[in-house]
Amino acid sequence: MITGIFPPIATPFINDEIAFEKLRENISRWNEFDLSGYVVMGSNGESVFLTRSEKIKLVESVKKYSKPGRTIIAGTGLDSIKETISLSNDTINAGADYLLILTPSFYQAQMKHDALVDYFNRVADSVKVPVIIYNVPKFTNVNIKAETVAKLAEHQNIIGIKNSSENLAELTEIISSVPNDFSVLVGTASVLYPGLGAGAAGGIMAMVNAAPGECISIYKNFIDGNYEKCLGIQKRLVKPNKAVTATYGVAGLKAAMDMMGFYGGRTRSPLQKLSGNEIEDIKQIFKEAKLLK
Amino acid sequence: MITGIFPPIATPFINDEIAFEKLRENISRWNEFDLSGYVVMGSNGESVFLTRSEKIKLVESVKKYSKPGRTIIAGTGLDSIKETISLSNDTINAGADYLLILTPSFYQAQMKHDALVDYFNRVADSVKVPVIIYNVPKFTNVNIKAETVAKLAEHQNIIGIKNSSENLAELTEIISSVPNDFSVLVGTASVLYPGLGAGAAGGIMAMVNAAPGECISIYKNFIDGNYEKCLGIQKRLVKPNKAVTATYGVAGLKAAMDMMGFYGGRTRSPLQKLSGNEIEDIKQIFKEAKLLK
Amino acid sequence: MITGIFPPIATPFINDEIAFEKLRENISRWNEFDLSGYVVMGSNGESVFLTRSEKIKLVESVKKYSKPGRTIIAGTGLDSIKETISLSNDTINAGADYLLILTPSFYQAQMKHDALVDYFNRVADSVKVPVIIYNVPKFTNVNIKAETVAKLAEHQNIIGIKNSSENLAELTEIISSVPNDFSVLVGTASVLYPGLGAGAAGGIMAMVNAAPGECISIYKNFIDGNYEKCLGIQKRLVKPNKAVTATYGVAGLKAAMDMMGFYGGRTRSPLQKLSGNEIEDIKQIFKEAKLLK
Amino acid sequence: MITGIFPPIATPFINDEIAFEKLRENISRWNEFDLSGYVVMGSNGESVFLTRSEKIKLVESVKKYSKPGRTIIAGTGLDSIKETISLSNDTINAGADYLLILTPSFYQAQMKHDALVDYFNRVADSVKVPVIIYNVPKFTNVNIKAETVAKLAEHQNIIGIKNSSENLAELTEIISSVPNDFSVLVGTASVLYPGLGAGAAGGIMAMVNAAPGECISIYKNFIDGNYEKCLGIQKRLVKPNKAVTATYGVAGLKAAMDMMGFYGGRTRSPLQKLSGNEIEDIKQIFKEAKLLK
Repeated sequence: MITGIFPPIATPFINDEIAFEKLRENISRWNEFDLSGYVVMGSNGESVFLTRSEKIKLVESVKKYSKPGRTIIAGTGLDSIKETISLSNDTINAGADYLLILTPSFYQAQMKHDALVDYFNRVADSVKVPVIIYNVPKFTNVNIKAETVAKLAEHQNIIGIKNSSENLAELTEIISSVPNDFSVLVGTASVLYPGLGAGAAGGIMAMVNAAPGECISIYKNFIDGNYEKCLGIQKRLVKPNKAVTATYGVAGLKAAMDMMGFYGGRTRSPLQKLSGNEIEDIKQIFKEAKLLK
Repeated sequence: MITGIFPPIATPFINDEIAFEKLRENISRWNEFDLSGYVVMGSNGESVFLTRSEKIKLVESVKKYSKPGRTIIAGTGLDSIKETISLSNDTINAGADYLLILTPSFYQAQMKHDALVDYFNRVADSVKVPVIIYNVPKFTNVNIKAETVAKLAEHQNIIGIKNSSENLAELTEIISSVPNDFSVLVGTASVLYPGLGAGAAGGIMAMVNAAPGECISIYKNFIDGNYEKCLGIQKRLVKPNKAVTATYGVAGLKAAMDMMGFYGGRTRSPLQKLSGNEIEDIKQIFKEAKLLK
Repeated sequence: MITGIFPPIATPFINDEIAFEKLRENISRWNEFDLSGYVVMGSNGESVFLTRSEKIKLVESVKKYSKPGRTIIAGTGLDSIKETISLSNDTINAGADYLLILTPSFYQAQMKHDALVDYFNRVADSVKVPVIIYNVPKFTNVNIKAETVAKLAEHQNIIGIKNSSENLAELTEIISSVPNDFSVLVGTASVLYPGLGAGAAGGIMAMVNAAPGECISIYKNFIDGNYEKCLGIQKRLVKPNKAVTATYGVAGLKAAMDMMGFYGGRTRSPLQKLSGNEIEDIKQIFKEAKLLK
Repeated sequence: MITGIFPPIATPFINDEIAFEKLRENISRWNEFDLSGYVVMGSNGESVFLTRSEKIKLVESVKKYSKPGRTIIAGTGLDSIKETISLSNDTINAGADYLLILTPSFYQAQMKHDALVDYFNRVADSVKVPVIIYNVPKFTNVNIKAETVAKLAEHQNIIGIKNSSENLAELTEIISSVPNDFSVLVGTASVLYPGLGAGAAGGIMAMVNAAPGECISIYKNFIDGNYEKCLGIQKRLVKPNKAVTATYGVAGLKAAMDMMGFYGGRTRSPLQKLSGNEIEDIKQIFKEAKLLK
C-alpha cells in the first residue's frame, strides 16, 4: 500500500534542456526529508513537454539520485493505450516501481464509466508494476466517479488513486467505495488534512516540491492525533498552494522552489516566465504564511 | 454566534398551495431533535416560487410552530437591493432572528469583489437583524472569494456565511480569513465532518430535513472528539446527500422526507415529479446507507 | 408576427431613481429611427433591480413616449409562475403588447424539456397577450433546446423566441424546427447578419440602444439582398458589441450610449461604475469601428 | 490560399489495426467528389490513439491513394514543441503539404495570448510547409482569440485557421482581424453556410466523411449566389451533424459512414461501440434529413 508524502517533482531546465545536475541537487535535499518517494512526470513535471527519450532518462536519474528504499512512481498515461503500455514498460525498466496513469481525456465527453474501465483495465493488464489512477479534472476535464474507481479497484494491478480535486465529498465517496488496502492519495496540499481525516493514505502534491517539511508535518501530526496542529499548518498552506497551482501554475511552483532554496528555474515553452510583480506576489503570500521569512 | 445544525426547511405543498398543517407536523417532529433552529426560504424551500405574501406567512408560521429558543433564519436575498431590504424588514417583523442573504447573481460575470462588498454592505446597513452571507454557486454561478468574505466580516451586522460548496480548500481559506466569532456554516451534508474539522461552526444542510439525527450525531460526536464515529456517519451520508441534492434536487429531497416519516409531497411547478424508478433509486441509496430499513 | 429591430431599452437612473425625463428623451431620439418597437425590462433594462411598482410605471412611460404604432414588449418572466402571471397581467394593463418571458433558472439543473414546457404553457395559458420565449444562457445558465421550442411553438399564445446565443447551429436548428410564422429573433448584434441569413425575423439587441442606425441598416440591406453591405457593417459591430455585453455589461452599454448621444448614466448597485480606462477602451473600440469619430 | 471542402478523414480499423485497404476504398470514393483535399490526423482521425509510426504510414497512404492535385493536410500538433516539430517534419517527408497544428492544451489555464503566440511561432519557424492553426475548444478547452490569430497571421508560414466553434461572432471577429489571404476555415458542418457568409474560405468538417455531396453543394451554391439553396441544405445538416459530433462523437461518425456507403467500422479503445439503439437513432436522424432513404 502506498502511504505518506510524495513530491511530483518539477523537472529542472537550463537553456530549455533538462538540468540533471540541478535535479540531483534537489533530490539530494529532498532525501533529507521523511518522504515516501518521488513521482516523476506528473503534471508539475511538465511531462507533456518532454520527449520520449527524455522521459526515460529522467526516471533513470531520479532512481539513481533517490535515497535507497524510496518509491519511484512514473507518470506514463497517454490517450493511446498502445503508447501508454510501451512507455510504461520502458519506464519500469528504467526504475519505476509504480505507474501513475492519467485518465485519457481528448474525447472528454466520451470518457464515461465504460470507457475508463476499459482503458485502465487494458493498461493494467499489460504492465509489470502496479497502477495508480490519476484524476486531475483541471487539466483533463474528466472527473472519474467513485463507482468507476470502485470497479477498477477490483483489478489486482490497480492499487490506488491520486485524486487532485479539492472536493471532499467526492474524495470521501471514493474512500467509502474502495477496499481498505486501496490507496487513496490527496492530490493537492490545500486539502491534505481534511483528506487524511476522510481516510486518505497520503498525498502527492505540487507543494511538496517547495515546502516538504510542512506537508510531512501535517501527515505526521495527523498520525499522532495532533489535529489542532494539522489544522494550524493546513490553514497556512491554502493560499500558498493556490498561488503555485491555480493562479500561477508550474511557473509559480518553480518560482516558489527558487525562494525556498531548491532549484526551480524556467518552465519549457509555451509556458511563460512570470513577471517580477507575479514573483513578488508569490513571495508575499509565502511570507504571510510563514513559509518564508 | 450561530452554531449547530439547522434544516433549510422544504416548503410543503398540497394542490400547489402551502400546506401549513403539514409544516406544523414536520416542525413538531424536528422540535424533538437537538437542532439550533430553522432556516425558512433557503434554496430547498423553493423560495423562488413563493409570492411575497406567502413568504411572510411562512416565516410567521415557522416562528409559531418552532420550539421556543430556536433561532429562525429567513432567506430574503434578491438581486434588487431595494426589494431585499423591504422583504427583509417585513420578514423580521414576522419573526426572523437572522437573514440569510444570497449573493446577487443575474449579472454573474460582474459579481466580483467590489460589487459583492457593495451589495452586502448596503443590505446589512439597512436591516435590523444580523446578516448571514449565502454562497451557493450551483444555483447562482457566483462563488464569493475568501478575501471578499473577509472584507464583509468587518461589517458589524454581517456575522456569518453559509457556504454550499464541497470544496474544502475554499472553506478552509474562508475560515482562516475571518475572525473567530464569524460563523462559517457548512452548506451541504456531504462535507459536514471535514467542514467541522476545518473549523466550521455548524451546518445548514438540505439533508437535515430528512435525516436530522445523523447530522446532529456528526456534530455532537465532533464536539466530543469521537472522530472515527463522525467519519463513519459521514461516509454513509455522501451518496444519500448526492441523491437529494445534485441528482434529484428538491423533488428528491421531498421524496426522501416522505420515506423518512416527514411530509415531503410535491414541489411547485416548473419542478417536475420524480418517476417511480427515480423514487426507487433514492430508496435503495437510503437503504444502503442504513438510513432506511 | 414580430419582425424588425428592437432595442431592449436600458433603464436610465439619476441618483439611483428612474429618470423618466431621460427615458423620454432617449425614446424621442429612437422614435426617429425605423425601429419596430421597444422592449422594456429585458436583461439590459436592469429588470432584476427594479421594484414591482417601478416596472409598471416603466411600461406605462415607454408606451406613452413611444411613437404610435410601435410594439411594446415587456420582460416579465420570473421563476415563480404565480408572480410571472400576476406581473404580466399588470404589465399588459400598463400597455404591453407582448411579453418576453425568461426561462426559469434558479434550479438550472432541473430546467429540462418537461419543466420548461410546463412553465411556458402555464404562463401562456394565463396571460392575455402573446408570449415570446427569452433564452439567454449567459445570465440563466439554461439553454432551451430546439425540440423544446418546437413543442412550445404549438401553443397558440407562444409566438416567438429571442435567442441570445451566438451559436448559429443552435439558431439554425431552432428555425428549422418551428413553423414559418413563429418569430425567431436574434438576441445579440454580433450575429445579426448570419442570424437573418439563417432565417431570423429580426433582432432584440443591446447594441440597438447605442447604435440603432447600424443595426437597422443590416436589417434593411438584408431584405434588399445587399449581402456585402450587411457583412461590412456586421464586421464593424462585433468588437463594439462584445465591449457592451460580455466585457463590460450594462455599465459598458450605458457608457456607449453616453458617447453616442443618448443618456446612459449609471447602473444601479450592485453593478459598479466603470473606470476611466474602461470607458476609454470602449471609446477606442467604437472609434475603430467607425461608430464614433 | 486554402479554399474549398476537406474531410478530416476517419481512420479505419479492423481488429484494432489500421485497415489500409478500407482507407484506400474510402479515398477512392471521396476522389469522385469535388473535394480540395484530405486532412489526416484531425480530431476525427483518432490521432491521439495512433503511434508515431502509424501516423507516418497513414500520411504516406493518404498521399498515395489521393487523386493527384489534392492537398494533403496533416494534424501534427502536440503540447511538446520539440515533438511537434519532429513529427511535423517526418510527416512532411511522408507527403504532407500543410500542417494542422492544434492549440497546446494541457496547461489550459496558461494558454493565453503570449503562450499561444510563442508556441505557434516556434513551430512555424521550424517546419518546412505552411501551418494552419487548429482551434477546437470542445476537445482542448482552449479558445484562441481573434487578436491572437491576428498576431499569428503576421508570421509568413502561418496561413490559416480551422475554427471548430459554432460561435459566429467569434468567427466573424477572426475574419475581420486577419488579411484577406489568410484562410479561415469552418470546422463543423452545422455552420458552413453562415461561416461562408461571414467570409470563410471553406471547411474541414467531420460530416464531409459521410456526406461529402451536401457539404460541397453548400460551398458551390454559395459561390454561385444561390443562398436559398444553401440555407435549405444547411437546415437539413444541423441535426445529423450534431449526432456525429456532440452526441455520439467519432463512433457516431463512423456509424454514419457505414450507413452512407463508406467504411466506418469500430473506433479504437477507449472509445466505445455504440448500442443498437444509438445506431438506430442516427439512422432516423439521417433519414429525416433526407441523407438516407
